[in-house]
Amino acid sequence: MNIATAQHNPLTEDELRRLDAYWRAANYLTVGQIYLRSNPLLREPLTVEHVKPRLLGHWGTSPGLNLLYAHLNRVIVARDLNAIYITGPGHGGPAIVANTWLEGTWSERYHGTCQDEAGMAQLFCQFSFPGGIPSHVAAEVPGSIHEGGELGYALSHAYGAAFDNPDLLVACVIGDGEAETGPLAGSWLSNVFLNPARDGAVLPILHLNGYKIANPTVLSRIPESDLLDLMRGYGHEPYLVAGDDPATVHQTLAATMDRALDEIAAIQQRARSGGPVERPRWPMIVLRTPKGWTGPREVDDKQVEGTFRAHQVPLSQVRQNPQHLAELERWLRSYRPEELFDATGAPIAELLELPPKGDRRMSANPVANGGQVLRDLVLPDFRDYAVDVPRPGTAVTSATGTLGNWIRDVIAANPETFRLFGPDEVASNRLGAAFEVTDRAWVAATTSGDENLSPDGRVMEVLSEHLCQGWLEGYLLTGRHGLFTSYEAFIHIVDSMVNQHAKWLKVTRDIPWRQPVASLNYLLSSHVWRQDHNGFSHQDPGFIDHVVNKKAEVVRVYLPPDGNTLLSTLSHCLRSRHYINVVVAGKQPTPSWLSMDEAVLHCRRGIGIWNWASSDDGAEPDVVLACAGDVPTLETIAAADLLHQHLPELKVRVVNVVDLMRLQPSSEHPHGLPDSEFDTIFTTDKPVIFAYHGYPWLIHRLTYRRTNHPNLHVRGYKEEGTTTTPFDMVMLNDLDRFHLVIDVIDRVPGLAARAAHLRQEMVDARQSCRDHTRKHGADDPRVTQWRWIRETDAGLSDDR
Amino acid sequence: MNIATAQHNPLTEDELRRLDAYWRAANYLTVGQIYLRSNPLLREPLTVEHVKPRLLGHWGTSPGLNLLYAHLNRVIVARDLNAIYITGPGHGGPAIVANTWLEGTWSERYHGTCQDEAGMAQLFCQFSFPGGIPSHVAAEVPGSIHEGGELGYALSHAYGAAFDNPDLLVACVIGDGEAETGPLAGSWLSNVFLNPARDGAVLPILHLNGYKIANPTVLSRIPESDLLDLMRGYGHEPYLVAGDDPATVHQTLAATMDRALDEIAAIQQRARSGGPVERPRWPMIVLRTPKGWTGPREVDDKQVEGTFRAHQVPLSQVRQNPQHLAELERWLRSYRPEELFDATGAPIAELLELPPKGDRRMSANPVANGGQVLRDLVLPDFRDYAVDVPRPGTAVTSATGTLGNWIRDVIAANPETFRLFGPDEVASNRLGAAFEVTDRAWVAATTSGDENLSPDGRVMEVLSEHLCQGWLEGYLLTGRHGLFTSYEAFIHIVDSMVNQHAKWLKVTRDIPWRQPVASLNYLLSSHVWRQDHNGFSHQDPGFIDHVVNKKAEVVRVYLPPDGNTLLSTLSHCLRSRHYINVVVAGKQPTPSWLSMDEAVLHCRRGIGIWNWASSDDGAEPDVVLACAGDVPTLETIAAADLLHQHLPELKVRVVNVVDLMRLQPSSEHPHGLPDSEFDTIFTTDKPVIFAYHGYPWLIHRLTYRRTNHPNLHVRGYKEEGTTTTPFDMVMLNDLDRFHLVIDVIDRVPGLAARAAHLRQEMVDARQSCRDHTRKHGADDPRVTQWRWIRETDAGLSDDR
Ligand SMILES: Cc1ncc(C[n+]2csc(CCOP(=O)(O)OP(=O)(O)O)c2C)c(N)n1
Ligand SMILES: Cc1ncc(C[n+]2csc(CCOP(=O)(O)OP(=O)(O)O)c2C)c(N)n1
Ligand SMILES: [Mg+2]
Ligand SMILES: [Mg+2]
Repeated sequence: MNIATAQHNPLTEDELRRLDAYWRAANYLTVGQIYLRSNPLLREPLTVEHVKPRLLGHWGTSPGLNLLYAHLNRVIVARDLNAIYITGPGHGGPAIVANTWLEGTWSERYHGTCQDEAGMAQLFCQFSFPGGIPSHVAAEVPGSIHEGGELGYALSHAYGAAFDNPDLLVACVIGDGEAETGPLAGSWLSNVFLNPARDGAVLPILHLNGYKIANPTVLSRIPESDLLDLMRGYGHEPYLVAGDDPATVHQTLAATMDRALDEIAAIQQRARSGGPVERPRWPMIVLRTPKGWTGPREVDDKQVEGTFRAHQVPLSQVRQNPQHLAELERWLRSYRPEELFDATGAPIAELLELPPKGDRRMSANPVANGGQVLRDLVLPDFRDYAVDVPRPGTAVTSATGTLGNWIRDVIAANPETFRLFGPDEVASNRLGAAFEVTDRAWVAATTSGDENLSPDGRVMEVLSEHLCQGWLEGYLLTGRHGLFTSYEAFIHIVDSMVNQHAKWLKVTRDIPWRQPVASLNYLLSSHVWRQDHNGFSHQDPGFIDHVVNKKAEVVRVYLPPDGNTLLSTLSHCLRSRHYINVVVAGKQPTPSWLSMDEAVLHCRRGIGIWNWASSDDGAEPDVVLACAGDVPTLETIAAADLLHQHLPELKVRVVNVVDLMRLQPSSEHPHGLPDSEFDTIFTTDKPVIFAYHGYPWLIHRLTYRRTNHPNLHVRGYKEEGTTTTPFDMVMLNDLDRFHLVIDVIDRVPGLAARAAHLRQEMVDARQSCRDHTRKHGADDPRVTQWRWIRETDAGLSDDR
Repeated sequence: MNIATAQHNPLTEDELRRLDAYWRAANYLTVGQIYLRSNPLLREPLTVEHVKPRLLGHWGTSPGLNLLYAHLNRVIVARDLNAIYITGPGHGGPAIVANTWLEGTWSERYHGTCQDEAGMAQLFCQFSFPGGIPSHVAAEVPGSIHEGGELGYALSHAYGAAFDNPDLLVACVIGDGEAETGPLAGSWLSNVFLNPARDGAVLPILHLNGYKIANPTVLSRIPESDLLDLMRGYGHEPYLVAGDDPATVHQTLAATMDRALDEIAAIQQRARSGGPVERPRWPMIVLRTPKGWTGPREVDDKQVEGTFRAHQVPLSQVRQNPQHLAELERWLRSYRPEELFDATGAPIAELLELPPKGDRRMSANPVANGGQVLRDLVLPDFRDYAVDVPRPGTAVTSATGTLGNWIRDVIAANPETFRLFGPDEVASNRLGAAFEVTDRAWVAATTSGDENLSPDGRVMEVLSEHLCQGWLEGYLLTGRHGLFTSYEAFIHIVDSMVNQHAKWLKVTRDIPWRQPVASLNYLLSSHVWRQDHNGFSHQDPGFIDHVVNKKAEVVRVYLPPDGNTLLSTLSHCLRSRHYINVVVAGKQPTPSWLSMDEAVLHCRRGIGIWNWASSDDGAEPDVVLACAGDVPTLETIAAADLLHQHLPELKVRVVNVVDLMRLQPSSEHPHGLPDSEFDTIFTTDKPVIFAYHGYPWLIHRLTYRRTNHPNLHVRGYKEEGTTTTPFDMVMLNDLDRFHLVIDVIDRVPGLAARAAHLRQEMVDARQSCRDHTRKHGADDPRVTQWRWIRETDAGLSDDR
């Protein structure tokens, strides 16, 4: 009962024969791609000239991928399923490419590569070839939302695709090596968050071919009963299909697929018949077949089929060793290509009939080209959520709290296309307003004291940054929208996933048939400066640096200084397409600086002089105080206040940067300011004291080509931290108001002598603030209660 | 049989009473740390003045941590165990600190904080207090090798500590929230790599307190039978201890600990009695008790004990709300401090007797202060493994292949203190020589065709970068040595783990009783430029950028250009202490440039002018060609060759950088070159064409303060890639020899007009090389077969 074995043989002789022929065709086309540059149908005896000079690709995983593809095609047709295929072992690129060619999708997407002999030659030649296509199930491959180059994310992508796609079946092949990765291991319990009534189904298929690159896999070598326990522990009903005789495996797999799909249908029907939604025991399949199945059994007297040696190119010396060449020919001919392709080189009619048609083909499913099904979000006007800011520095509020109200209404207005993702931090990040209109998704058990948990929730909380990221990627790539909130420090956990997504975005920009998808949006709100409960391990602003290394056309970084600018920024991000947007904004109450109208203008510019805080009106300043980030902005304004009070004759210009990419030259980034504008704002020769949220050298890296770069002095996080007060944190890193004043005194020519007293006062103020924290365990009220107060608006500036 | 329940009550009444008293004392000290700044023993009625101004810390996890600590102490004493404690939920800092104080270790490490009333006041006051100690189980906490700030690594650290420590018991508490993370989920199967004969034991204890920050945990809400299946699937024998009545839980936990430790002893005895080593079914414990157990049951009419509301500070309004204050006092007094501490404030004698003594205390175990037990590696002289390089550019070899022979002998010479870690890439990275002397560690099933697998193996291969990193960290922090080899792109998977380790290293430099540990060494050898089989997803050199953001005193980056320099570099790294060393070096055959003697000098300098490739002898150069990394070095030397041939009058200086940190100012990094030296090498006004391995802007970030920075032009990886030939890859990124020549022509004043023909030739060469790849699928032999050949050594230079 627990493990289905082929109780019956569901395939007729004829079905079996055709299915096997299809599999052979796909395998043939796979081997062809790895080896051949001409003579694709072996109409001539194989010679070295027909073989590619560099043999690149991965054979081992391919026969299994092809087998599953063929069997999925069978059930799609039989049941008229809406399905996509996620290839965990994405290095099996040639297998999936082969299938898309058999289905005709490849030829539709790439018109040169028809379903004939020339097309087949072209298909073979281009694979892993300069100017051709990549070796993986990359963005170039129709039907793919998962390149699988970096292993570990197949299952989280699959669940992301299934959310809010009630009719979708996501078949997800997981390599048994891939299953060893942390992210994959942590993905199995995703089924706790999948609502069988509202969401689609994921069918995990563990591809237990026994090996990875040079090693056996753990899951293939633990007792089979442990493996099945493991799958049950994850909440699945496991079905084992094992063997190395094609006919038997075809029958067992077909029976198992039928069984699994019956169960899925039953689960969905139960869940959709109106009763309470419970977590079902979803089926999953373990496919235990040899790695490199149907390939060379032995090469140079070493076993290859069914071992790790089948991983890449089993016969690697084809060009040097005539025996290898002969063996390759034997291997290719073992698929009997003459039975599979007609005189023109097209698959025979029988094969063409087998796969689903049109959009039912997994390679043509619109869901897997997310931009194609993407609808704009219904976005309430963020201006309606504005903080009232009668004067700068008033209205002390939590920026994310302000945002929360808008997010709540975004969720409500888009009940099927927007979700919020986070590792259990949505409430602590002050986005709790969301729970006025929705819950956290949860189909496991609940108890009476639980808050905001339900199968219908649209907030996805799980203590796994990997899972949040993977789900969101899958959700976006299938045409929906989302926002990921996380601790700033711990978003580094997904650095490498971000890399891969950025690469996907970059590549798909140049693939004409790929439509732009919604941007991947991050809100990092428990940031480096306010880790009051936590300390050093939670202090790291380096994700910005990481993201800025990506291709300029896909990354955006925003540091809104208050609630209104945050609203404006996020609204922009949720409208945008095909970017990675990183927004950093604190959750702690801070003064608001800009009215909504000002905020909109400021964000549109991305950078601006704040006249009301400056004292250089109309004239050239003596110093520019620049800032980016909420805490640096507060310190900068406080420093400006000190300067205005103590050095009223000093012409200070305050510049705030929201859009960090404005700092880069326009040649480097589409958001970059032209040099002339940059020079106007930052002057060409005055000292600039830049208070920055993150690692200071990033500002240098962005501005080193600017005229005034030699006069730029950046303060930021220099990796000094611990569990302490907020002001002690900025002091530890010399980013505090007093130190900024000192920096001004030290950098403005001629000021040093004149302002010696003030400088000393600042040094003493730092010491006294530090002493205060040591004595009272809290910041000096003179700091915390400081406000930007001007008697009249016209005091320093008149243009507000 | 599967789940131990308290079959008997192993504790006598008196033992039970004392154990419970110890637990109450630890709980009392925990609450005291979170709340109190004075009146530590409640000798006076509690007032607001006694309470800290900022209430910071995490209560919820603490009672469970304290319970386990007390019970582990019991069995350590009873069995004279050598044990350490890994606190997965490291936010339970006050709990572990409390225990170290009770054991006396805290007072030994921090002399001010004695075991008396003043010491207790000090203990309370300093916690999460400015100038005090962090909130987590950070490096400041004796006995800790795991701060637990970023959740997910407890179990991998535990296994790392256990490897090669046959007598050690590593008790590893895993938060049920933490268990949702990918890295933790992927760690369970570590037992496949633990040899019960040679290694110590890990006792995983899943702390199923039901909640994380604001949510229930997945593992606490799936059916209990699933949870137990899961643990069995991981190969464990699970024991469940559940309840909320202290006396009952004490008895059950004691019985369960006894049972588990009996089993561990039996397993070890079996394995060590000489028979073949098999994978045993190790015990593990599930502790299901309420979160915030013994804390306030309800606060403001909401249930707290046993819910997520107990996570941080359950009574948060103590200073504002008299009811909260009264409740806090009730809570503190519920532990009956007057029974636990004597008149001086010391724990009563009965409590002092309970824990183990001396080094047996988990907080004083030398293993947890790894530097204390660290022994130098026995390192064979790397010079004996030199590649013979009669002339520069000869001896085409694989650098990592060369290194492999030395690594093999390092492994052989250090059979208990050195291991090699990697995600199934040791062989493909050409370090296969290791298998001449050892195997891969593996205690799961094997079959006849397997190669190099055995329980005694010292190569740790698992398809999880997280696991490799976590194991290695645990291994290093307990006083051993190791090397991690990985794909360059995928090492980003552990970015955040590297952050945490770097923080640990930084902090421990300033903790006098922490001894330096061996460095964390990376060898990234399947690097961005040679992803022939893979393509874009495998192309990312950004790990260097990531590491360079860490504190200068803990990071080192090396780019040895060939085998001899790699040998010299790695030998240096394996001798070093308390660093993170990143070494990037390719595995593909490339020309060797330096003899061993030259390599040693070059590496010692970290940077050097290569006279033999330069044409500026004695004079000022017209242009400096700088390079860092094996592929950029090859292209630079080839470019120099072209320049020498075509523009013989041009004075070219070739500079190679091995130690990237040499580029930074000496004020920024201890390896930084003084400006005077930098100016000598790079001139103050000549164009510098810098061919760099990674993202080009890193070189700017490192050198923006240097005199000649405005003349620095950097070529590197600009995120252009795919599956193509090696030379096509460098061309895609303008790093090829021809483009470097073009750069020289474009930058050297006056050269443009003169060298127009050559420039055009270079443009054409690029095109023709590209065409060659498109046509032949391989690089032009004129490129691949190019060699640096000089008729006489004296041709261009005479100092070799
Ligand atoms: C995160 C990550 N680490 C390392 C690799 C290198 N790598 C490529 S394929 C492979 C083995 C994959 O084994 P498995 O998942 O079992 O796939 P299959 O056997 O089907 O080829 C490895 C380790 C990778 N692609 N991703
Ligand atoms: C990787 C990571 N993501 C998020 C957090 C934020 N965080 C701190 S404690 C916590 C909940 C921990 O729950 P659990 O592991 O069950 O510990 P316990 O219940 O014992 O406190 C979270 C999510 C973190 N520390 N690390
Ligand atoms: Mg496999
Ligand atoms: Mg918990």
